[in-house]
Amino acid sequence: MSCLKVARAFTGRAKIAKVEGAYHGLYDYAEVSQTAKPENWGAEESPTSVAVAHGTPESALSEVVVIPFNDPEKAIAILDQHAEDLACVLVDLLPHRVGLIPASDEFVTALRNWTKRNGALLVFDEVITFRGNYGGTQDNYPVQPDLTAMGKMIGGGFPVGALAGRKEVMEVMNPLADKLLFPHSGTFSANPITMIAGLTAMQLFDQKAVHRLNSLNDQLRRQITEAINIADIPACVTGGGSMFRIHMKPQPPINYRSAYADSDEIQIRSALLDHLFDHGFMMINTCSGTLSTAMTDKEISMFGDVLLDGFHKIKPLFTSENY
Amino acid sequence: MSCLKVARAFTGRAKIAKVEGAYHGLYDYAEVSQTAKPENWGAEESPTSVAVAHGTPESALSEVVVIPFNDPEKAIAILDQHAEDLACVLVDLLPHRVGLIPASDEFVTALRNWTKRNGALLVFDEVITFRGNYGGTQDNYPVQPDLTAMGKMIGGGFPVGALAGRKEVMEVMNPLADKLLFPHSGTFSANPITMIAGLTAMQLFDQKAVHRLNSLNDQLRRQITEAINIADIPACVTGGGSMFRIHMKPQPPINYRSAYADSDEIQIRSALLDHLFDHGFMMINTCSGTLSTAMTDKEISMFGDVLLDGFHKIKPLFTSENY
Repeated sequence: MSCLKVARAFTGRAKIAKVEGAYHGLYDYAEVSQTAKPENWGAEESPTSVAVAHGTPESALSEVVVIPFNDPEKAIAILDQHAEDLACVLVDLLPHRVGLIPASDEFVTALRNWTKRNGALLVFDEVITFRGNYGGTQDNYPVQPDLTAMGKMIGGGFPVGALAGRKEVMEVMNPLADKLLFPHSGTFSANPITMIAGLTAMQLFDQKAVHRLNSLNDQLRRQITEAINIADIPACVTGGGSMFRIHMKPQPPINYRSAYADSDEIQIRSALLDHLFDHGFMMINTCSGTLSTAMTDKEISMFGDVLLDGFHKIKPLFTSENY
Repeated sequence: MSCLKVARAFTGRAKIAKVEGAYHGLYDYAEVSQTAKPENWGAEESPTSVAVAHGTPESALSEVVVIPFNDPEKAIAILDQHAEDLACVLVDLLPHRVGLIPASDEFVTALRNWTKRNGALLVFDEVITFRGNYGGTQDNYPVQPDLTAMGKMIGGGFPVGALAGRKEVMEVMNPLADKLLFPHSGTFSANPITMIAGLTAMQLFDQKAVHRLNSLNDQLRRQITEAINIADIPACVTGGGSMFRIHMKPQPPINYRSAYADSDEIQIRSALLDHLFDHGFMMINTCSGTLSTAMTDKEISMFGDVLLDGFHKIKPLFTSENY
C-alpha cells in the first residue's frame, strides 16, 4: 500500500499495473486479479481487473491494469494503452500465487525500460522474495527498481513492513520537506523490538547462510523431481532461492493461467497435503514451502521420503487426462 | 482498512462515510478530509472529500462521504443523499484530530438509527479510544456499533490491529464459509508474542486501573484549566478518558473546523511545545497527551508546573484578536 501511494505521490498519477494472479497484500488495488478464474479472467491480451473482496468499489478496479507474467510483448502492449496514467508497475520476481516461477530477465528488463520511458516507477515486491539472495532476489537481475517493498523475515519474527528506494522517490515521505506529498507515519513505525530482532536476523542471515539455504533448496527440488520420476506421476516442482512449489501438472506452468489448479488437481493436491500432515509436515494449500535456517539435510531428506510415499499414494487419483 | 472492507463485503456497497478531519490510518478512503483546510474544505452542509496524499485517485475520493462532527442534523442530511450506496459510517468517539471532543450521545444515536434504517453498518474506530473505558469508550454510549477497530495498546507494546463485531458481520471473513466474501489473513495474524503481551496488558489494565487513569486525567485537566486561569491566556483544554488536548483558543472547539489551528495559534503552540521539550516533556505537535499506567500524581503535578511556566512565557504572543 505504501509503495503504491509513494508511486502515486511521486508521479501524480492514479493507476497502477500488476501481474495477473500475484499476491501483494489486502490493499484493494494491489489484490486485484489475485483470485481470477477462467470464467472471469478475460482475454490473455487484456486480463480483466477481477476483485478479490466482495463490495470492492468498481472505481478501484478501474485504476488497476493487469498484465500477464513473463510475456513482455503482451505486457508492454497493455501498458502502452495506459502510458499517461500509470504511476507504477508492481512486480514480484518469484510470485508464489503465479506459480513460483522466476521472472525472466527479458520480462523484468522490458518493464524497467518501459517504466523509465514513460515516467512510471518500477516497484519490486520483495516481501517474500527478499530471502532469495543477499541483497534480495533483485540481485539476480540486471536492472534495479525505483522502490522495493519488504516485510516478513526482515522483522526477525516480529510484525514488520518496510520500503526502500531511490532518494528522489523516498523524498515524497520526507516530513521536513517544504511540501510533504505523502505523510507516512504510524504507531509502530520503527518499533524498537522489531528493529533489533530484524537487524539481528539480517546479520545472521549472511551471504553464507543465504547460499547454504539456497543450495539446500536446489537439493530438495532435485529430490522432489526424482521422487516424481520414481512414482511416475504427472507432477512437477518450481521455485528458486529457498522456496519451492509442487504442481499436479506434468509441465511447469509459465504464468498464472497455466499454474491455475483445476478441481481435479486441487483434489489430488489435497490428498497429498493430508498425507504430509499425517506424517508431520503442515503445508500451505498451494503445496509450496519455504526453507528456514534451522533446517538441515536431515529435515530435507525426511521430507523427501514422506513425499515419495505420498506420490505413490496419490498416483491412482490421476487420470489419463492429467498426463 | 479491514473494517471498511468488511462493511463493503457485508453490504455489497462501495461508499463509506466518515467525520471531517478524523484520522483513521493511511488507507486512501479512511484518510480523506483529515488534512482539509479552510481554502478547500467546502461548505459546512457538504464538506469536500479532500485527499491527504498527492496522487490519490479521484475515484477514491468519490467513494467517500464526509460529515461534520457532532451535528446530527447536517450529518443525516448528507447521509440521506447517499442512502443506497453507503456500506458504513465510520466514527471515532473522541477524535484527536477533530479536537479531542467527545462525540455527543445525540450524534452517535442519530448515526446508529440512520445506519440501521438504511442497511449500512456503524463502525467505531477505537484504535486510540479503547483505553477510555473498560469495554472501550463505546461503554459510555447508549448504542452499540456493528464493528469496532482496535489497535495500539491492545498489543502491549507490540505491533497489533484487531477488529470485532456482530457474528453475522464477522462471518464475511470466515474461511470455512461456503462463499468467503472477504479473505482476510496475513503473515502476522495472531502473532504469538503480540497476543501474549496484549493479553497481559489487557489483564493488567483492569477496571480499577482504567478508573484510576481516567481520574488522573480529570485532575490533570482541572489543573490545566486552573493554570490557564492563573496565566490569564485565551487557551482551553478538551479530552476525556485518559487523553487531553490543549488548544490556543478561548473556547473549546466543537468540530474539526473550529478546532483548526490558524498560523497564529500554531506559532504560539509551537513556543509552548518548545518550552515543554526543554523541560523534559516531549509532546505531539497538536499539544495532546495520553496518560499511561506508569504515571502518578507526581508526574501530573510536575507537568502542571512546567505548563504554568509555559503559559506565562507564551502570554505575550497572544494578540487581542485571540481573546
